[in-house]
Amino acid sequence: MEQLKSIQAQKGKFYTIGVGPGAMEFLTLKALRLIQTADVIVAPRSKISSDSLALQTVAPFLSSHQMVYEHIYSMSRDEESTLASWREVAIKVEGWLKEKKSVVHITIGDPFIYSTTHYILSELEGRVDPNSIAAVPGISAFQTIASKFLKPLTIQEGRLMIMTGTEMSRVEKALEEAETLVLYKCGKSLEDLTTLLEKKNLIHQAKLVCYADQEGKEVIMHDLREVRKSHPGYMATVIIYKGELKWN
Amino acid sequence: MEQLKSIQAQKGKFYTIGVGPGAMEFLTLKALRLIQTADVIVAPRSKISSDSLALQTVAPFLSSHQMVYEHIYSMSRDEESTLASWREVAIKVEGWLKEKKSVVHITIGDPFIYSTTHYILSELEGRVDPNSIAAVPGISAFQTIASKFLKPLTIQEGRLMIMTGTEMSRVEKALEEAETLVLYKCGKSLEDLTTLLEKKNLIHQAKLVCYADQEGKEVIMHDLREVRKSHPGYMATVIIYKGELKWN
Repeated sequence: MEQLKSIQAQKGKFYTIGVGPGAMEFLTLKALRLIQTADVIVAPRSKISSDSLALQTVAPFLSSHQMVYEHIYSMSRDEESTLASWREVAIKVEGWLKEKKSVVHITIGDPFIYSTTHYILSELEGRVDPNSIAAVPGISAFQTIASKFLKPLTIQEGRLMIMTGTEMSRVEKALEEAETLVLYKCGKSLEDLTTLLEKKNLIHQAKLVCYADQEGKEVIMHDLREVRKSHPGYMATVIIYKGELKWN
Repeated sequence: MEQLKSIQAQKGKFYTIGVGPGAMEFLTLKALRLIQTADVIVAPRSKISSDSLALQTVAPFLSSHQMVYEHIYSMSRDEESTLASWREVAIKVEGWLKEKKSVVHITIGDPFIYSTTHYILSELEGRVDPNSIAAVPGISAFQTIASKFLKPLTIQEGRLMIMTGTEMSRVEKALEEAETLVLYKCGKSLEDLTTLLEKKNLIHQAKLVCYADQEGKEVIMHDLREVRKSHPGYMATVIIYKGELKWN
């Protein structure tokens, strides 16, 4: 890996880094180099989890001289309390950067697709020089999920909508304006979604994955009607392959 | 990299692998291991390019005993001729798999987001055992582009539309149904797009990047009206940050 030696976490800099869906082989070389050379690693962990999935993903590559700071945040859908919780971390980051430490915030998937990155960046605003902040993209869950089905998300003039699967009225509208839909966080609406897809005659064009690429936990459903028998979990992602929009 | 030694390209298997936007540091560890251990590398190169960007990306990691097969394809928007051109490659791949070689097809970005993967997989159908085919996701250009602006593509209930920026009527509709738009291949419609964004009062919420992360070539425009003075290139990508859709 001689070619990548020049990639190093800089002193006094903050990086928010996507580590992929939760298996170490989806780390990019850039993410790996920055994580390995950082002084401090900030790892988010939700209140309901016993471990930080992001931290598990990078753990095999860390050294004992690196400081790991786990931030436990609530999964509540309340923006104020979410921001308040990340404010504590932002204040710590501000201190570390003043001490000329290099700090890496790791996040599952990509930092700009449904990530905690938004909250920590919001709280860093005004506290640290914007030029001391950088972001590194990561493989988002929808990408590893799509790779299992060997079907394109978009070709030619096709449109791909990435959204949550919580509101059926929005899903129904999206079906009119996109050829492929990726629906995150479908766990609570799987029965409604299955009914909608039956109504729209799309039930055979949908796939579900839960805990993608997490060893021993992954669930794949090729027929969504199975959700009526066994619930796959809250973090279910559904892809609807509606069709293609060709060049002409 | 002891932890990843078990990841090896299998004899008689075909992998389509996303290598990221065109800089080697965006390769994933999985992509790197498979590319380094494959017998044959199939690299697409468009007729108008002097080099294969995908091949350039992985070249530093290849060994002299690996066979590299460059496939030159036309950029025409004609499905029949595109498929016919990839049929030649599929026939070769079929032969290599029969000889128990491991074959890797490399593609810029992600294999299922506007990629040549669709054409080679279509032509492999019926020729090779579907179980001998696998795909590995890659960082798509929109992800490295978004990482430059430090702004989320989606938070909470936000919707992200990924589409081409060729038809203004479709862009206008998408603006109603998504909070963020990623428009690929905007090169030919940049003036129309700028006019539309001015009309919609969104001109200050759009960013343009061309040749993302390609050394010495990258163009970033924070104000789209600059396109009226200098054209950034055909492969321009525009992100429109319309707003956010919060939890409540």
